[in-house]
Amino acid sequence: MAKHENVSLSVIRRLPRYYRFLGDLLKNGIHRISSRELSLKMGVTASQIRQDLNCFGGFGQQGYGYNVEALHKEIGSILGIDKGLDIILLGAGNLGRAIASHMSFDSRGFNLIGIFDVSEDIIGQTIRGIRVSHADTLPEFCRQRRPKVAMLCIPKNSAQEIADNLVELGIRGFWNFSHYDLALDYDNIVVENVHLGDSLMTLCYRVNEVLEQNPEGPQEKE
Amino acid sequence: MAKHENVSLSVIRRLPRYYRFLGDLLKNGIHRISSRELSLKMGVTASQIRQDLNCFGGFGQQGYGYNVEALHKEIGSILGIDKGLDIILLGAGNLGRAIASHMSFDSRGFNLIGIFDVSEDIIGQTIRGIRVSHADTLPEFCRQRRPKVAMLCIPKNSAQEIADNLVELGIRGFWNFSHYDLALDYDNIVVENVHLGDSLMTLCYRVNEVLEQNPEGPQEKE
Repeated sequence: MAKHENVSLSVIRRLPRYYRFLGDLLKNGIHRISSRELSLKMGVTASQIRQDLNCFGGFGQQGYGYNVEALHKEIGSILGIDKGLDIILLGAGNLGRAIASHMSFDSRGFNLIGIFDVSEDIIGQTIRGIRVSHADTLPEFCRQRRPKVAMLCIPKNSAQEIADNLVELGIRGFWNFSHYDLALDYDNIVVENVHLGDSLMTLCYRVNEVLEQNPEGPQEKE
Repeated sequence: MAKHENVSLSVIRRLPRYYRFLGDLLKNGIHRISSRELSLKMGVTASQIRQDLNCFGGFGQQGYGYNVEALHKEIGSILGIDKGLDIILLGAGNLGRAIASHMSFDSRGFNLIGIFDVSEDIIGQTIRGIRVSHADTLPEFCRQRRPKVAMLCIPKNSAQEIADNLVELGIRGFWNFSHYDLALDYDNIVVENVHLGDSLMTLCYRVNEVLEQNPEGPQEKE
């Protein structure tokens, strides 16, 4: 695999989608695909796919297409999903519990190793085989287990303070579900925000727009 | 409010964040803010903010700043969150149930009016005051209540077929949590994907990158 440095975030953000599509192809028994077929399936141009993959060295052969299994494996390796980063969950309310139960962490590069909350009703429950601990035990846990990533499903008014503490405890990346944009006073800390509320409001705008422009309903594409 | 047509999707996607920041300012008793202060808080340039807002007509006065309450209200109105679109949920497993319980739909432009599943264990349960119905009753429900938006928390192998049926039943917008990119054969249908798995893999790449580049830990920003 070629060395990859200074690859833009927008290219990085497209890699998981390639990985997902290639995995689906494999499941359907497809082992070779041309960049044109792949581009049609994914709704992006073949040139975009080639450009994106060229950031990481060459794949595929001219006129011969991509080897699906090799490319899938290679993109997985670029993403680092074989490395198994330890992740902890802060906040095991409705949302935190559901995502911890629902997500396949290990197929996406993570091991969930600890869950923390402050509510006495939640502490002691078991989620995915992990007992929810009191957040007071977090410093000791981090010293022993040295997790590098934290998933935040906590109210926004406590998110900033907790994130600052977690950085002190060695956390280098956040998967942030709080309705809050973390602003960290450190370089080399990664925040991946999932703003469900923003996504819902964007949908609101877009649906109202199509309803205004085409009140009668959709037309089949030509 | 000025008429707004052909505003790019990237501008639309930034509006919810403005709305969220302005709402927080209001809660903190701040009623006037300069575009410079707002830009510092949000980590975008003042010129970007002005450009974005100019797509919807002028706001604020030169040298005088923005009226936070008026701007918050105006952006809410542009987003259409006062219109209350009816939304239904398909799939009330862990994730669907959690998001239905957790999200404030009404403050983001939606009324949740129906929840559907196919699992006998889930049908009959009550989530947020709504009884989960069998998916077989969906056609009758849609004829009577005419919801325009559906939230999909269903396995990816059934997502495409169900989405096609929902379009026939009058659904015009999808909030899609399936690990699947809906490809609809209709114009004027909106899909807002929330790919949690893709987000997690992007985080995986980025954390591994900072760990490689700075194994010792973060530095405080200067």
